[in-house]
Amino acid sequence: MSIRKPIPRIKNDNYSEAAAKQRREFIEAETGVSLKHTGHYSIDPKVVEGNAENFIGVVQMPVGVAGPYLINGEHAQGVFYVPMATTEGTLIASYSRGMRVISESGGATVTVTGESMQRAPLFEFASAREALHFSRWLEQELPSIRAQAESTTAIGKLQHIQSWVIANKLFTRFNYSTGDAAGQNMTGKATHKACQWILGNYPGVIENFSLSCGIETDKKHSHMNLLHSRGKKVVAEATISKDVLKDLMRADPERMVRLRQRTILGAILAGSAYNGPHSANGIASMFIATGQDEANVVESHTGIAFMDLTPAGDLYYSVTLPSIICASYGGGTGLPTQRECLEMMDCYGQDKARKLAEIIGATVLAGDLSLAAAIVSDEWVSSHDQLGRNRP
Amino acid sequence: MSIRKPIPRIKNDNYSEAAAKQRREFIEAETGVSLKHTGHYSIDPKVVEGNAENFIGVVQMPVGVAGPYLINGEHAQGVFYVPMATTEGTLIASYSRGMRVISESGGATVTVTGESMQRAPLFEFASAREALHFSRWLEQELPSIRAQAESTTAIGKLQHIQSWVIANKLFTRFNYSTGDAAGQNMTGKATHKACQWILGNYPGVIENFSLSCGIETDKKHSHMNLLHSRGKKVVAEATISKDVLKDLMRADPERMVRLRQRTILGAILAGSAYNGPHSANGIASMFIATGQDEANVVESHTGIAFMDLTPAGDLYYSVTLPSIICASYGGGTGLPTQRECLEMMDCYGQDKARKLAEIIGATVLAGDLSLAAAIVSDEWVSSHDQLGRNRP
Amino acid sequence: MSIRKPIPRIKNDNYSEAAAKQRREFIEAETGVSLKHTGHYSIDPKVVEGNAENFIGVVQMPVGVAGPYLINGEHAQGVFYVPMATTEGTLIASYSRGMRVISESGGATVTVTGESMQRAPLFEFASAREALHFSRWLEQELPSIRAQAESTTAIGKLQHIQSWVIANKLFTRFNYSTGDAAGQNMTGKATHKACQWILGNYPGVIENFSLSCGIETDKKHSHMNLLHSRGKKVVAEATISKDVLKDLMRADPERMVRLRQRTILGAILAGSAYNGPHSANGIASMFIATGQDEANVVESHTGIAFMDLTPAGDLYYSVTLPSIICASYGGGTGLPTQRECLEMMDCYGQDKARKLAEIIGATVLAGDLSLAAAIVSDEWVSSHDQLGRNRP
Amino acid sequence: MSIRKPIPRIKNDNYSEAAAKQRREFIEAETGVSLKHTGHYSIDPKVVEGNAENFIGVVQMPVGVAGPYLINGEHAQGVFYVPMATTEGTLIASYSRGMRVISESGGATVTVTGESMQRAPLFEFASAREALHFSRWLEQELPSIRAQAESTTAIGKLQHIQSWVIANKLFTRFNYSTGDAAGQNMTGKATHKACQWILGNYPGVIENFSLSCGIETDKKHSHMNLLHSRGKKVVAEATISKDVLKDLMRADPERMVRLRQRTILGAILAGSAYNGPHSANGIASMFIATGQDEANVVESHTGIAFMDLTPAGDLYYSVTLPSIICASYGGGTGLPTQRECLEMMDCYGQDKARKLAEIIGATVLAGDLSLAAAIVSDEWVSSHDQLGRNRP
Repeated sequence: MSIRKPIPRIKNDNYSEAAAKQRREFIEAETGVSLKHTGHYSIDPKVVEGNAENFIGVVQMPVGVAGPYLINGEHAQGVFYVPMATTEGTLIASYSRGMRVISESGGATVTVTGESMQRAPLFEFASAREALHFSRWLEQELPSIRAQAESTTAIGKLQHIQSWVIANKLFTRFNYSTGDAAGQNMTGKATHKACQWILGNYPGVIENFSLSCGIETDKKHSHMNLLHSRGKKVVAEATISKDVLKDLMRADPERMVRLRQRTILGAILAGSAYNGPHSANGIASMFIATGQDEANVVESHTGIAFMDLTPAGDLYYSVTLPSIICASYGGGTGLPTQRECLEMMDCYGQDKARKLAEIIGATVLAGDLSLAAAIVSDEWVSSHDQLGRNRP
Repeated sequence: MSIRKPIPRIKNDNYSEAAAKQRREFIEAETGVSLKHTGHYSIDPKVVEGNAENFIGVVQMPVGVAGPYLINGEHAQGVFYVPMATTEGTLIASYSRGMRVISESGGATVTVTGESMQRAPLFEFASAREALHFSRWLEQELPSIRAQAESTTAIGKLQHIQSWVIANKLFTRFNYSTGDAAGQNMTGKATHKACQWILGNYPGVIENFSLSCGIETDKKHSHMNLLHSRGKKVVAEATISKDVLKDLMRADPERMVRLRQRTILGAILAGSAYNGPHSANGIASMFIATGQDEANVVESHTGIAFMDLTPAGDLYYSVTLPSIICASYGGGTGLPTQRECLEMMDCYGQDKARKLAEIIGATVLAGDLSLAAAIVSDEWVSSHDQLGRNRP
Repeated sequence: MSIRKPIPRIKNDNYSEAAAKQRREFIEAETGVSLKHTGHYSIDPKVVEGNAENFIGVVQMPVGVAGPYLINGEHAQGVFYVPMATTEGTLIASYSRGMRVISESGGATVTVTGESMQRAPLFEFASAREALHFSRWLEQELPSIRAQAESTTAIGKLQHIQSWVIANKLFTRFNYSTGDAAGQNMTGKATHKACQWILGNYPGVIENFSLSCGIETDKKHSHMNLLHSRGKKVVAEATISKDVLKDLMRADPERMVRLRQRTILGAILAGSAYNGPHSANGIASMFIATGQDEANVVESHTGIAFMDLTPAGDLYYSVTLPSIICASYGGGTGLPTQRECLEMMDCYGQDKARKLAEIIGATVLAGDLSLAAAIVSDEWVSSHDQLGRNRP
Repeated sequence: MSIRKPIPRIKNDNYSEAAAKQRREFIEAETGVSLKHTGHYSIDPKVVEGNAENFIGVVQMPVGVAGPYLINGEHAQGVFYVPMATTEGTLIASYSRGMRVISESGGATVTVTGESMQRAPLFEFASAREALHFSRWLEQELPSIRAQAESTTAIGKLQHIQSWVIANKLFTRFNYSTGDAAGQNMTGKATHKACQWILGNYPGVIENFSLSCGIETDKKHSHMNLLHSRGKKVVAEATISKDVLKDLMRADPERMVRLRQRTILGAILAGSAYNGPHSANGIASMFIATGQDEANVVESHTGIAFMDLTPAGDLYYSVTLPSIICASYGGGTGLPTQRECLEMMDCYGQDKARKLAEIIGATVLAGDLSLAAAIVSDEWVSSHDQLGRNRP
């Protein structure tokens, strides 16, 4: 192999089966491996334009379904079967178990409490004083800036601009609503346009400008996201019947709450992005199944779990997930298998993104409940032993 | 749909094509959608036992290759083509661009500087004083505890036990090396065994015990992981020729360093888990392509980016990734397409996990370089516009 | 000694010299120590009512002056001598050295970019959905809530209410401007009144209420304070002449910037509340000298330091301190020695709090510059050796 | 005023009353204020050499006593009266109230679970690989390095060296025990010496070196300190009788625990350095009274509070404070009033630092209990209203 051997491309027909085949053959020749399975797919390579360059085929990631799951959302209402793509044995079984316990206790209540997507341009000045003046001008000119930003998109709306003076700079965070799309590109384009207008119209001197200063914080967990969201803020709650919990999970509410009181100290000691058991598992497997941007699980997994005993001795359990980044169209959602998984929950297309966010939130709740109960009842290691055979 | 309609299972033959088909038909009947594409795969459902329960088929996630990429690791040496599974347009093209610039500048130097996998049991006592005594006993009895833990595994080695007295409790973190496996289950089993011995042999009174207190911190980003790793610590470095950078990316080292100086403030302001551009993209797409646990991207994406000018005016750039959780066997690595992707880099099987970690680290470096240069040269929005068509 | 021996109090005359003396004699009798020096003071014990219960005397904390210091604030303009109370040898000398270098480079530019003081009541509901509805009602009723809050104070103004839905709760943060007072009590009273009105007038069911839920975050550093301030946001900046820097500190701008690039990584690795050298020293010594609440140094020390080379090769250095909690009247500011220290800077009384904040910010800048230069020039250990004799 | 008017110094007699007087007269002349009270003190200016340069007098900070307080430490055993220097009305009364409740419930149990003081040199190399090799050499040569470090001090002992490879650098943290001194200077000198030996003896190439890279983290709160301490780790615990709690504080254990469950969420949301009510108040006021470095309250205030119901329905409450930096000699401890305050608790001089740390920990517990109970019983605002008259 040599750095002088570029991956083959077919000009003007690069997203064709011919091009994909040529690349597979190239890789097979260069590396000596067979790409038989990778080359086995039912999707048309043309569809992939806009999703993956240098396309050679697909990863076949196993999908299982969890449920049935009773969800009382504002958008997701009824019983759902949830598609999860994963290679971690036990995971789907464990989520299903949680869904059953919650469903038999009356279901999960889910609420989307807000949403926004950001870009974060940086402006630099002679001193902090000029940065402060500029921040006031930004506020004043918000209508014009909004008009510029929104001229680039039929859907995105500029909600508000947050700003911080740091040294002689203004770090800003442009917050948008983006309809049913995740909106990273939409907001990038809109903010770029808005900034061109700002740079052209600000009467003072802007010494330096960058379209991004990092505080959006794209593809990164951050405390900023925990506080100010990136995507949708979702709260999923359930009151778990103590009898159902005991029957199905051999756990009782008191011990669950006691464990929670202790593991929350662990979360603080560790400085954890999430203080519950494992939000990332449910989110990642649903994201992959439904064609979400798989890297966004890092922002989305942050949140706060809370447990309490009710006066009746049942278990109130909730997860608050402030940065669920999900879409019901665009990105990978239109790819054939991903679309099928969305459709399975009636979550494909217009006006479905909040519904999807609610199902994701409810799913995280179910998985957390199941794992916490397994630790309390000491079944955790033995269940992995039984189901997770391929995982050392 | 009703919560009384469980997903079908075939007893004693649940990981068969028949069972998968029955479940697809059940879901199709219940939800009214077609699962034609999801049902199209070349893998044998039997293989999936241990990876996914209630299997109905696969998600076909597009795979492209990035490269060629010259890597000077201790384990990965030579030129590589890197498989990336993603639905985010631009991503593979951008990583490839970074790989080219680094390769033409002499390649990426990568070093694995450590590795460990953890379980974190909790022990509770009458007071902090007893917890402190117990922590000393743990140290004293480390050889016996190690023998117990290691009796459950041919591969895992108990390296050391960290502990913190908090209130009247001892929060512990058992650190293991786990060979070429990620090792979450291996260490769970080993720690469970070790704890049974501890509970049976400690001469004092342990009032409460839990196999997990949260500080491992599994499936969660944490500052603990940034400091003490979970998985492999990887540093990837390159000295980028200023001429190559200018020619291929229309960026120059001085402006790159200036932007870095500013975005690192943004990372601090935001409280970001990673202070570079987008480690999560490279990690997630490689994790999915190679059958890693997809949720582990949340731990793995944390890290520290650093840029500096060399005396010659070139650009030194490095990424330090302390928690890359990856395996070259077990879990999803043996699934057909995932294994092909691993084999493409000669990273399947024994003694390959560190090599894989090095390639992942180098890949993150390339993607960071490319995105940072795009921001500096203001190409960022326009390139997404051109390539990322499916992504609003 | 016995827990049955309460500290003496004189009913209706407890803040008298007689009462103080009686307590000193009691402590001397109980503990066998002399309180001769503690009992030596020029202040009238009556003055201390409202500052310290069970008064027995004073700590004599040494005060030195640093300066002269040229400050170009919006409120503090001219040359200042800065009183610092400390027991750490070297500290005042080091701050003075920094002040000289900055003054000879043209002085420090300081800007107060915002201010607010908070109380953070908690409201609890049946579910997140009700919490969300309540948050909208709060926004709607802001004028009425503001009227209630402001009815308790002639000075405090309720700026805005931030809120977060977490589980079935609404965590709120009431932000006030508080004039020249620090305002913790003022805002406590105002928020208490406002909440009584809220509890009486909200048409829905509030299941639980607490006047504080911790996110104010009083007497604690927090990322919240870094982002959203508690007290005054201050940015102090200076462009340090490379010649002055070399002459007076044997350091050069390039090495200063290089060190900064590296220590900022340390700050990220450590998860530091402040990424510069030692804001807390300047703040604590000025707080004690001027009668500020000495515990507020924990909130006030957070911030972001930034260094860069100017095109001319000089050193731009700034500190951004978002949570400087200081007052020019109330609390300890009226105590005789503290008032003298304030008056020394013309910072006592009305319309002086922002001026004081500017001087504090400028002082932090001077101390940071001095310590960073000492590390670069390797004088750090030797200077402590020479001056800090009493400190092992 | 002019930057050309330096503060007067008397050569060879600068720590004399004459010099102090001359400086007071200079400041009075320059600023027009009287320094009558600042100039009123009983301490000999000579004593201040090593504590404060440009000495002009003292701040008279009011001192009150809290207690009696029953403490069951390993070092502090019996009943104590605790000196607190503060200007915040209510504070001493509130701490006293907490001490009474705990004392009547059997007292506070306190344990010092560890101690260390740090310096953190930075070493830079050609690449991470060389940094890793160097880190292994450091481990190997620990005995020699220890010998060098300890040659500079009769008391300090180098315990262990932590290290992190970041980019091509090794960030290290040299951990020492420092006897009864706080030890910042002691460890600075020792580490400086050790590093000179390292730089002279390492067979490889160290490209850059700095005595500090920020991770010690001196005069700054950090997550590092929460995890790895700076100073003494102290746990204070008490089981509060529900009857005493109700009688004296109108609060009951159940509601205390419920509030704690909620405010801990607030602490996580805010990213607080301390998750209890107000550790900083007790620590700052004791630090000032006893001559500790007043800026160290920022490190010392971090920690974890924990509450639980006992089976009998009483309240278990503990505070874990991992970074209490305190000394029983050196620094300001020998100043006359400060020494009296230390002697009042028999905490001056040899073998008393751990005792002092225990009393500080117990005091924080008492203050936290009192404030939490006041919030629960809704007395918080009204008590400040009554006692804190001077504080707006």
